[in-house]
Amino acid sequence: MLKHNSYFDGSVQSLGFERNGLRATVGVIAPGEYRFDTAAAERMTITSGTVQARLAGGDWLNFPTGTAFEIAANSAFDIRPVGGCAAYLCEFLG
Amino acid sequence: MLKHNSYFDGSVQSLGFERNGLRATVGVIAPGEYRFDTAAAERMTITSGTVQARLAGGDWLNFPTGTAFEIAANSAFDIRPVGGCAAYLCEFLG
Repeated sequence: MLKHNSYFDGSVQSLGFERNGLRATVGVIAPGEYRFDTAAAERMTITSGTVQARLAGGDWLNFPTGTAFEIAANSAFDIRPVGGCAAYLCEFLG
Repeated sequence: MLKHNSYFDGSVQSLGFERNGLRATVGVIAPGEYRFDTAAAERMTITSGTVQARLAGGDWLNFPTGTAFEIAANSAFDIRPVGGCAAYLCEFLG
C-alpha cells in the first residue's frame, strides 16, 4: 500500500500513499540540486528545513518550513535544500 | 545519507535524515494500530491526515494535521491513523 521511491541515486526519497482517493508522498531531499517533471499538478509543502525552488524558469524562491508552492501539470521545477536536508509533503492535485 | 525504514510488514515506513546534528524521520502510517518503543525522546508532528495516540498508558487522544506530541525516552506509545493513511515528522530530541 505504501510505496518507497528513490531518485538521483537515493539523494531524494519519498513514500507514496493515498487517502480519500487522493495521492500524496512525503519525502526527504539531501543537499544538491534536482529537477523534477510533473505529470499531474502538485502542491509541495515544506515540513522540515528550507528549500529553494525555481518554478516555470523563474528566479529561485525561498520556501521555509510551513510554506507551500504549486506546480502545474506537465511541467517541471528545480529544487535545492538550504542548510542541510529538507522534508516535504507532495499532494497530487489531479 | 537518507535511510529507508520499514515496520510492521511495510504498514509503517519512514525516511531518516539529519540536519544540524539532529536526527529526524518523515513517515507514513497505513490503517492499523501500532506500538513503538522509544530510545531517545521524540516529537511527532502530524503533517497529513489525523492520528490517535495513546501515551504512557493514558487515553487515546486525537492529533490532526498540524498538531504534535512528545514521547519520553525509553518509553512506548500506541498510534493509529483515522480515516486512512497519515503522515508525520518525527524529531529525535536527545
